[in-house]
Amino acid sequence: MAKGITKRSVDYSRWYLDVIAAAQMADYGPVKGCMVIRPTGYAIWEAMQSELDAMFKETGHVNAYFPLLIPESFLQKEAEHVEGFAPECAVVTHGGGKKLEERVVIRPTSETVIWSMYKNWIQSYRDLPLLINQWANVVRWEMRTRLFLRTMEFLWQEGHTAHATYDEAEEETLKILGIYKNFAEEYMAMPVLTGLKTEKERFAGAVKTYAIEAMMQDRRALQAGTSHNLGQNFAKAFDVTFQTENGKLEHVWATSWGVSTRLIGGLIMTHSDDNGLVVPPRLAPVQVAIVPIWRSDDEKTAVLERLHAITADWQGKIRFKLDDRDNYRPGWKFNEWEKQGVPIRLEMGPKDLASEELVMVKRHSGEKERIPQSAVYEKVNEALEQVQQELFERALAHREKNSHYVDSYSELKERLKDEGGFYYVHWNGKRESEDKLQEETKATIRVIPSDQPEENGQCIFTGEASSRRVVVAKAY
Amino acid sequence: MAKGITKRSVDYSRWYLDVIAAAQMADYGPVKGCMVIRPTGYAIWEAMQSELDAMFKETGHVNAYFPLLIPESFLQKEAEHVEGFAPECAVVTHGGGKKLEERVVIRPTSETVIWSMYKNWIQSYRDLPLLINQWANVVRWEMRTRLFLRTMEFLWQEGHTAHATYDEAEEETLKILGIYKNFAEEYMAMPVLTGLKTEKERFAGAVKTYAIEAMMQDRRALQAGTSHNLGQNFAKAFDVTFQTENGKLEHVWATSWGVSTRLIGGLIMTHSDDNGLVVPPRLAPVQVAIVPIWRSDDEKTAVLERLHAITADWQGKIRFKLDDRDNYRPGWKFNEWEKQGVPIRLEMGPKDLASEELVMVKRHSGEKERIPQSAVYEKVNEALEQVQQELFERALAHREKNSHYVDSYSELKERLKDEGGFYYVHWNGKRESEDKLQEETKATIRVIPSDQPEENGQCIFTGEASSRRVVVAKAY
Repeated sequence: MAKGITKRSVDYSRWYLDVIAAAQMADYGPVKGCMVIRPTGYAIWEAMQSELDAMFKETGHVNAYFPLLIPESFLQKEAEHVEGFAPECAVVTHGGGKKLEERVVIRPTSETVIWSMYKNWIQSYRDLPLLINQWANVVRWEMRTRLFLRTMEFLWQEGHTAHATYDEAEEETLKILGIYKNFAEEYMAMPVLTGLKTEKERFAGAVKTYAIEAMMQDRRALQAGTSHNLGQNFAKAFDVTFQTENGKLEHVWATSWGVSTRLIGGLIMTHSDDNGLVVPPRLAPVQVAIVPIWRSDDEKTAVLERLHAITADWQGKIRFKLDDRDNYRPGWKFNEWEKQGVPIRLEMGPKDLASEELVMVKRHSGEKERIPQSAVYEKVNEALEQVQQELFERALAHREKNSHYVDSYSELKERLKDEGGFYYVHWNGKRESEDKLQEETKATIRVIPSDQPEENGQCIFTGEASSRRVVVAKAY
Repeated sequence: MAKGITKRSVDYSRWYLDVIAAAQMADYGPVKGCMVIRPTGYAIWEAMQSELDAMFKETGHVNAYFPLLIPESFLQKEAEHVEGFAPECAVVTHGGGKKLEERVVIRPTSETVIWSMYKNWIQSYRDLPLLINQWANVVRWEMRTRLFLRTMEFLWQEGHTAHATYDEAEEETLKILGIYKNFAEEYMAMPVLTGLKTEKERFAGAVKTYAIEAMMQDRRALQAGTSHNLGQNFAKAFDVTFQTENGKLEHVWATSWGVSTRLIGGLIMTHSDDNGLVVPPRLAPVQVAIVPIWRSDDEKTAVLERLHAITADWQGKIRFKLDDRDNYRPGWKFNEWEKQGVPIRLEMGPKDLASEELVMVKRHSGEKERIPQSAVYEKVNEALEQVQQELFERALAHREKNSHYVDSYSELKERLKDEGGFYYVHWNGKRESEDKLQEETKATIRVIPSDQPEENGQCIFTGEASSRRVVVAKAY
């Protein structure tokens, strides 16, 4: 067991916090529930931002920035929205030494302020679609926080688009859901279910909420991103209309969608192990840590010289760190890079000079291999690809193993007690059943899965006819 | 005169806002003094971020993220700091529907929260230097705001570094000042003076504040970036000590430094003209706008085909937009790209197909040129370089023309009334003279310039001996 990291089997929650502490990813700040994202954690966020931002731009979105502060009265313009968010708001009552005439809140999300601006920006069908995203911080007053997963302030991107028809808005909502799934699976190596949320779990103010849901190692679900079709709710609340091609005046159709620093929590809990963090290669700020071994200055010179030669043209191709620090020993360095989740470690000492080989160690499996120095670049690239793939497959196998079809509520309750996991059950849409489920088991309906085939069955709660299964799980 | 843009000679302040509106760069949001940065403006900020971020990383800095919310009591730990910032704070008194036990403020700057964390992160000389930057929003309750130049919330980067000695901190402070100067001149094409601020103008809590100062077209000064040597002030306020190599316990030495979205205001006021925005090529989100001209569908096909062939391998090399929109006429498009400050416009119509030429127009000079289609890529690249250079030289010539040596206070007062400009005057360091200057002329000492030679003279305020000149100007 790595020093300072509790085993998952002993205390999963403690393990999660230990992994974060060991990698120096985050800390709590002085205000309760507020998080400091330290350089190691932030570098992963930067890698995520960079990939997602490119995907948004490729699909025609542009970035902008809307104010942090929103008049409290704005929230009230959309009935469901205020109900969902007002209780979570941080309220500014004083500014510049004076009591404010109107209270303002720190954005918990930006629909209201953005649609108050769209009112001025949208007049005609020519102004549509409007495809805007912003990278920002938001504040939601949470009582029970957990680093990355639920914090009072978090960083996210929030897309807010405006369209001429319901169908276009729905198409956008699904396009983004697809981007989120692709990002989660291809970059984070985190398999996700996609699907619709039930009315109970819907975003406050949305017509439809879609989500990506992942299974963590403790078999709980993590909602990792949401994409909302907002219908005309916000356009009506802020009276945003446009002139159609036929000269009619209609309310605009809207979507909003977001992923946050919560993704980092998902990444940690999908891949990490009892030795600490494991980062998938495509998002790893450092993909390869190279640890030279020497006992004398001559050896140091010779080893470093060889390593410089080997990595001479890696810049811009592989993100690597040659750890030539004098004041730390190789063993300490091995441990350090392991805790930080660096996918590949290379070790080279004086003996390897003669044999013209070096040692490559894979973080996720511990697998060691001697590889020829003449082929390091190829071997490392191959290994990075392979690790990315294996991490995804391992996580997928875990989810498959822990996904079950269950046909009675008593069995579901029993299994949820000790097992965790995803349960595919028939539910015929009644809100009361959903409330009962949550009350009695603390589990919720995570999604009505997109790819689930129609199937005749009986609702496990009411015994009534049901046409398809939904996914039930305990969630973060 | 461009439609909707007031001439500079008529009303400079109005012109500035008109340029922003015409390019759709920014708007005010619903809370007084808060700014919405629209996509055109934000894309320039993204370009600035990307270049600056690379410069910080090249010099060993890493990014992190610290909380938005700071306990009000933290500000009070550094005596000067609280005096400077407390009156400008937005105060959160309620959260989650309840009155808070301790009031928290929205960060006006992050020294206090960061040094409260550094206390835990720094123990030994091995932990130093700590070179951290963050990209964030801050709020300062301003009464008189102006888009980009002074807004209640703004975006910025703030670097916060920790060092083992005063000299290292001073070296860091100057290194960053150099980066800022380089960025302003090489990327923004905005010449800047560098120098030390007087004690009166120093950052609240700093030992030394250095700044870059630019001259706008109305001959006012704009402080465009600051770099502070904080001495041990914050380390003492938060009791941050480290063990030296000799085993002694000492307080840590600190710097902080920042540039903000104010830079966008500086960019606008340095280069733009009565036709709207002018963006220097290195920061232009779109460097080349290509406007095809056609009257029939056949012509359209032929012209677009040729343009696609010409630009086939530009991707990733030149940031260009081929404006093939059907619902707008060429004249409208010319105007549109002009208002957005795109450095180069290319026009090609049916007649140009035969002659195998096209027209290149430079935004900053209006200069038109026919260029052979076979050499567009080379010509455009050359032009982009040349425009970048010319913008800098034009701005530098403007500053030189409006910089004056003045040796009497009465002359200074007279000239400040009608002329504006930078005035190099002898001042022997008395705070009273500085206060009088500001009271009587509204001008301030902008910097004690870094590159100003020693020179014996008489202080223009007191007649006392003075060893060098400082720069006086009215400022934004």
